Amino acid sequence: MLKPQTMRRVAHAPDRPLTLVTDDVPRPGPHEVLIRVAAAGVNRPDLTQRAGHYPPPPGAPSTLGLEVAGEIVELGSGVTRWHVGEQVAALLAGGGYAEFALAHEGAVLPIPSGLSLVEAAALPETVMTVWANVFDTAALSPAETLLVHGGASGIGTTAIQMAKAHGSRVIATAGDDAKCKLCLKLGADRAINYRTEDFEPIVRDLDGADVVLDMVGGPYVQKNLNVLNDHGRCVIIAFLQGPQVELNLMRLMLKRLTLTGSTLRSRSVEEKARIARAVEERVWPWIEAGKVKPVIDSTFTLNEAESAHARLQSGEHAGKIVLTT
Amino acid sequence: MLKPQTMRRVAHAPDRPLTLVTDDVPRPGPHEVLIRVAAAGVNRPDLTQRAGHYPPPPGAPSTLGLEVAGEIVELGSGVTRWHVGEQVAALLAGGGYAEFALAHEGAVLPIPSGLSLVEAAALPETVMTVWANVFDTAALSPAETLLVHGGASGIGTTAIQMAKAHGSRVIATAGDDAKCKLCLKLGADRAINYRTEDFEPIVRDLDGADVVLDMVGGPYVQKNLNVLNDHGRCVIIAFLQGPQVELNLMRLMLKRLTLTGSTLRSRSVEEKARIARAVEERVWPWIEAGKVKPVIDSTFTLNEAESAHARLQSGEHAGKIVLTT
Repeated sequence: MLKPQTMRRVAHAPDRPLTLVTDDVPRPGPHEVLIRVAAAGVNRPDLTQRAGHYPPPPGAPSTLGLEVAGEIVELGSGVTRWHVGEQVAALLAGGGYAEFALAHEGAVLPIPSGLSLVEAAALPETVMTVWANVFDTAALSPAETLLVHGGASGIGTTAIQMAKAHGSRVIATAGDDAKCKLCLKLGADRAINYRTEDFEPIVRDLDGADVVLDMVGGPYVQKNLNVLNDHGRCVIIAFLQGPQVELNLMRLMLKRLTLTGSTLRSRSVEEKARIARAVEERVWPWIEAGKVKPVIDSTFTLNEAESAHARLQSGEHAGKIVLTT
Repeated sequence: MLKPQTMRRVAHAPDRPLTLVTDDVPRPGPHEVLIRVAAAGVNRPDLTQRAGHYPPPPGAPSTLGLEVAGEIVELGSGVTRWHVGEQVAALLAGGGYAEFALAHEGAVLPIPSGLSLVEAAALPETVMTVWANVFDTAALSPAETLLVHGGASGIGTTAIQMAKAHGSRVIATAGDDAKCKLCLKLGADRAINYRTEDFEPIVRDLDGADVVLDMVGGPYVQKNLNVLNDHGRCVIIAFLQGPQVELNLMRLMLKRLTLTGSTLRSRSVEEKARIARAVEERVWPWIEAGKVKPVIDSTFTLNEAESAHARLQSGEHAGKIVLTT
């Protein structure tokens, strides 16, 4: 298959609309693969990066896009597992909003059987984020309860299904009744509409939570500590209501709670590879068994990236938004 | 050895001086030992309990005192490891400020060779607290740096010596130059007088800390987060400046920090036994090799318990205050 020298990619600048530009196709360095992108997941950090508040890590492409699915068209030196012509999904350091993108071989994953490339493109960022935070860091056990905020988001829909596949009880919050219904359909044992109900007394009445996956921050953090049972863990992965909090930490000490957080992008190549292999071993079978299925809100072409961002920004979406080339 | 039916113990009530009263000698229940107390450690939670803010856990004696050393004079049913006449130290659920006290067999420890009973009485609470928080929860490695606040306190002097015996680098804060000197003498690589210096820029210049052991709370918590390196852990064991904090959690997320805390007293009998055995295996050899030595500030008789509390409250002490019977 002939590989062109140039490609279209989405260009961005703060307060400017996204545009399509023509650029050179990147060449894979050692241990990298070049992927002809079929579909690229849209994630909230893309909005932050576009606004200029989330600079890419050193060495990463400036183009937006943290995950893709497509076909491998070229191998860098030292790549052993993958071969040209293979269809794969991958977590990227950036550059997914383009016709071609580079991925480190450790962050490449096979396409789970039965999934389209659009569905596969929606997996790496959310599945790896949920795995790293809920399963790895917080070590959710099947006997425990997960509280997930933003249950209808890409992360939320994934967390609900993964925790249920694991055997845990799941309580989700979401912003309207339709989203709550989606959470329940995905297996959540209880969904709370946070616009009409206060999750704190409800979760406490439900015997509390052992792990909270939070992307809200702000006033949610104290409430998370309040609903956690002894030895509970709260993991923060974003701050939709900001990182500034007022907390009373007495309960944290007396209940021996853990408050922690992380981002996927800042992790080392080795850590991402370790997470990718764990996900392939533990989550891919759940996907192939139909227990975990990516929820696709909508797809847009690269040319419509601006509309894709507008939809994500609106908060009206449920599940993932995906760009197609 | 004849065991009397009555004993003297310290009685307390909020805003009243401590007094000596006569009471029945308690009888050991299943898996308990009765200890004729030679010495009892004085700890800060004793002040809090006396003031009415730290009720003993269900089933615990109302008498103050969380640790003793002395001689076993009676065994409850099912006790296999210990025998009458043996000298031991023990962590208690309460009741140490008395001539006799009950301990669960799992929380009993042998007297390390070379130590007096006064020195041994100063060990259980501090050594087990430091072990549980710095070594167990925070998993300090020999290649890492521990920042310990209140370096001249009972906990602080113990944490400095244990972390140094482990091979870690230690930075301590303390409230005057004499206390800083003590920290350095105990092995701290750097001591910071917090009344004349701001620990935050100093610790950052020293390449930060990986674990913080904090008993201050309040404004220290944000500073702790600021000086922690990637994957750093802050463990809070008391709130001398209160549990109410204002925090910006962005660094917690980006550096993947862990904020947690604990108290020893609220732990289950099984957890205390597990910690006691770990301490006996790992810390007792350090004590017997002279690498860790309890720092005794002063001793008082049971009759002088009021003066012992006054000294602890003053903050002028360095190391542990111990009562003798």
